Amino acid sequence: MSTAAHSDQPEAVTVAITTGEPAGVGPELTAVALREAQSRWPAVRFTVLGDRALLEARAGAGAGWPANAEPVDIEHHALAAPAEAGKLNAANGRYVLGLLDAAIDGAVAGRFDAIVTAPLQKSTINDAGVPFTGHTEYLAERTHTPRVVMMLAGTGERPLRVALATTHLPLKDVSAALTIDGLVQTLRIIHHDLRAHFGLAAPRILVTGLNPHAGENGYLGREEIDVIAPALERARALGIDAPGPYPADTLFQPRYLKDADCVLAMFHDQGLPVLKYATFGEGINVTLGLPIIRTSVDHGTALDLAGTGRADAGSMIAAIDAAVTMARHKRQLQRHA
Amino acid sequence: MSTAAHSDQPEAVTVAITTGEPAGVGPELTAVALREAQSRWPAVRFTVLGDRALLEARAGAGAGWPANAEPVDIEHHALAAPAEAGKLNAANGRYVLGLLDAAIDGAVAGRFDAIVTAPLQKSTINDAGVPFTGHTEYLAERTHTPRVVMMLAGTGERPLRVALATTHLPLKDVSAALTIDGLVQTLRIIHHDLRAHFGLAAPRILVTGLNPHAGENGYLGREEIDVIAPALERARALGIDAPGPYPADTLFQPRYLKDADCVLAMFHDQGLPVLKYATFGEGINVTLGLPIIRTSVDHGTALDLAGTGRADAGSMIAAIDAAVTMARHKRQLQRHA
Repeated sequence: MSTAAHSDQPEAVTVAITTGEPAGVGPELTAVALREAQSRWPAVRFTVLGDRALLEARAGAGAGWPANAEPVDIEHHALAAPAEAGKLNAANGRYVLGLLDAAIDGAVAGRFDAIVTAPLQKSTINDAGVPFTGHTEYLAERTHTPRVVMMLAGTGERPLRVALATTHLPLKDVSAALTIDGLVQTLRIIHHDLRAHFGLAAPRILVTGLNPHAGENGYLGREEIDVIAPALERARALGIDAPGPYPADTLFQPRYLKDADCVLAMFHDQGLPVLKYATFGEGINVTLGLPIIRTSVDHGTALDLAGTGRADAGSMIAAIDAAVTMARHKRQLQRHA
Repeated sequence: MSTAAHSDQPEAVTVAITTGEPAGVGPELTAVALREAQSRWPAVRFTVLGDRALLEARAGAGAGWPANAEPVDIEHHALAAPAEAGKLNAANGRYVLGLLDAAIDGAVAGRFDAIVTAPLQKSTINDAGVPFTGHTEYLAERTHTPRVVMMLAGTGERPLRVALATTHLPLKDVSAALTIDGLVQTLRIIHHDLRAHFGLAAPRILVTGLNPHAGENGYLGREEIDVIAPALERARALGIDAPGPYPADTLFQPRYLKDADCVLAMFHDQGLPVLKYATFGEGINVTLGLPIIRTSVDHGTALDLAGTGRADAGSMIAAIDAAVTMARHKRQLQRHA
């Protein structure tokens, strides 16, 4: 009995939250999400990275900062210039990047079990003179990871999860970017991380085709025959459960999804419209393949809502939830290893 | 009072139904859908095109053919060879095409107000020696229509409708197939048909981009800037309400869709996964731009279910519903013209 009680204790983990663009909704969504941290995520410590005065001021819009709540620490990083809600200022570009660097360093060093990133504005960082294409790419580069996989997910018991074989590419370049090796590596990463961080012993990954009707036996394109099917064959030989390629338009139906842990779509607009429709603003973004755990909201900085207290914290809460769950699965595996 | 009562009378229209591939589920779905024709669609006459013996035999699986029901006539076309459920036979390819030809001819001549097509199997027709790429293309050719638009739709008060700028093209050819002229023509067709056949006085058509995030100001592709935006400008100058281009992954959200009558997606797998997810097997397919009204189910022949009586008639009923509604709107317009 006492053993069972012991294993029911939630694993104690530490989650870092980068509050992102100071003119956006990141600071207030973090405050809203953490206000009930103790009851929502027992045994979790949070380190919130940002300017203390900004966080406290912006939390007012969401009815107060949970500063005295036991499990929440602020790691203060000073703004370079005052931040006004809704007004981008390139002077704070390096501040935003500094939060991210500190979170990554802390996670790599083992001080944080996971990172949750609030939205940032790419242009602020680029205008500050730092080339920056996105959180995901930056995380890969800073952790020397040759390939990462973007996965978006809903919430709940059996959430819809959609991973992408290609991400932010012009549509006309997608076909050329798909290779057998690349798809096999992508499937290995998904398979590995769903096992290691999601507690799925034998994840089932349904794979779409590239063309309408998955190419209709080569009649509407040959990538299914020349690239995708051979990649799936190699992945299956590695013990990965990856059936397909399936027509994307009929795959997202309950009768197929009920047996799936993840759908691998070939490109951005094939997988994400349906995922975002299905998750109704509570979707989250997970970067697979990194040596650290990272989740984020699936929306942007919402400059028009910043400072109003009206932004919906649903995705932020879901992103923290996912980070906590993933961190606990990783800890449990390490304990049993 | 009597005037009001008179205008409440449903417009009397005639709908033709082609029962499609004789080895598939078309015959039994037609029988199921029409069993309650009189109560479901008052004042509508139906002409069902197919082999009488086949229809009566296959209806057994769905608990009987509504042969004696007043508003349903069978227009007999003899099978070339006996049809077995689930077994394709190229000997019947020309039979399937004959049903379609008769329905088109009847609609063009004004004998039918609309056509509903049950699914056919392209290979049966091709194997019979007739080159055939699909219902939509065949209807366009047979009615000498230079451009048609495929639109899929859900059911209900404010259904999600998704039209496609390109349809059955390999993905890598989509970019080159988009032209300013072509998009303007597509928008004109959608605008015209939503007014003429759907009773929408000022339809609002939301238009997607081609690339992820609608190209992110040219950073992820230039088609939005070079092709789509100029097309929308021309369409708006013609009085068409067509805002965009919008990122496809965030467009399919209630806050945007609530003000829209239709979404124009740039390609098949950008628009249809979310449409089919949202409509849950009750989606329908409408061909816009034809001189006649044509709707169909959004699924295939389901050979594995044929003859079992287990196929779901939801999409067939929805397709008939849509045909009836469209035919009535067209009749009303003609009356008031």
